[in-house]
Amino acid sequence: MAMHTVESIPLPTIRRYPSYVAIVHKARQAGVTHISSTAIALELGLEPIQVRKDLAACGAVGRPRRGFALKELLKALNKAMGLENTREAFLVGAGNLGSALAGYKGFERWGLRIVGLFDSSSRVIGKRIYGIEVLSTERLPELAHRMGVRLGILTVPSERARQAAALLLAGGIEGIWNFTGVRLQVGPHVVVEQVDLAASLVALYNKLSEQKERRGE
Amino acid sequence: MAMHTVESIPLPTIRRYPSYVAIVHKARQAGVTHISSTAIALELGLEPIQVRKDLAACGAVGRPRRGFALKELLKALNKAMGLENTREAFLVGAGNLGSALAGYKGFERWGLRIVGLFDSSSRVIGKRIYGIEVLSTERLPELAHRMGVRLGILTVPSERARQAAALLLAGGIEGIWNFTGVRLQVGPHVVVEQVDLAASLVALYNKLSEQKERRGE
Repeated sequence: MAMHTVESIPLPTIRRYPSYVAIVHKARQAGVTHISSTAIALELGLEPIQVRKDLAACGAVGRPRRGFALKELLKALNKAMGLENTREAFLVGAGNLGSALAGYKGFERWGLRIVGLFDSSSRVIGKRIYGIEVLSTERLPELAHRMGVRLGILTVPSERARQAAALLLAGGIEGIWNFTGVRLQVGPHVVVEQVDLAASLVALYNKLSEQKERRGE
Repeated sequence: MAMHTVESIPLPTIRRYPSYVAIVHKARQAGVTHISSTAIALELGLEPIQVRKDLAACGAVGRPRRGFALKELLKALNKAMGLENTREAFLVGAGNLGSALAGYKGFERWGLRIVGLFDSSSRVIGKRIYGIEVLSTERLPELAHRMGVRLGILTVPSERARQAAALLLAGGIEGIWNFTGVRLQVGPHVVVEQVDLAASLVALYNKLSEQKERRGE
């Protein structure tokens, strides 16, 4: 049994698929029907062999000299990424970052719909952010169960991450997109993916300093 | 000469410093004057030995039984992260993600001020986003030179990343915070730090699928 399932594709490959999709959309807009792995590699700054392996992993089949049919390629990539269905998510922490993310329409393109905003501060509870009312975090567990929401986006300050994560777990959340700097301890049945913007920013500063050091400035 | 400089600290350590700072702030608000590495480790889900090494790297010195004086620790961490000065940045791509980031006030806390927004679309040019007028990307290189801006934030769609990066390079930008899925080829004198939200999101989906697979669902 050598069927291609989402599970059989390595995570680094999966992470590259969204940018492949962007290139396929660009090619469609340009009016072409096929694209070569070499063209994708050039556009994204990747090795052609890497792109060929990645595309093979999602089950896409190219034709010699013509390359990949855009429509089929898009379908295979979306399937491999698990984007056939839209997923609903609760966002905890409706401060600056949470509000920014709540207003970011790009997530729907990647199958994510934010259906609830939660905060523990009375200054924010009751406000509407992009049409969604901010609710008290106390209500999160019950609402997550009732609405069957399985994804949580964590955008609270680091020092409140643990408490907020506990509420998500109490609500039966299975996956947390963690924008705090905290390594969450969630047990074996919950998965976490971390995006730490502050960490990324200071890493950029550090690379800049090292670069200047090397140049002798 | 064994001075502690920013350059001598490993990047993974630097990336953890922002969350240490968050914990220090929390402790200050709670009215205490000292904190132990063990307490920080517990709060952030890290190994105590890791925290001790990280804090030693920034030159912070703790006292037996008392731990680290919060004020000194904060100063050492901020210095190690290079946060004494605020850095100015241009943001290219004033679409959904760019607008969201432009409105995110949290960056100032980490020493970043967005002083220019640029876009290539006539639908966006001239608009004001959080008080900053969106300018045509054509003007970016000249303005970057004139204003001495050295950091660029790239929030264009992947398919436009290469052209936008070329404009940043033409403007003498030395560091790019790259929110596109494209691996930028920038030459040896420019540093890049990547945050790929779409990649992170599909990675989360993939982890969820694998988790369900393991549970036999």
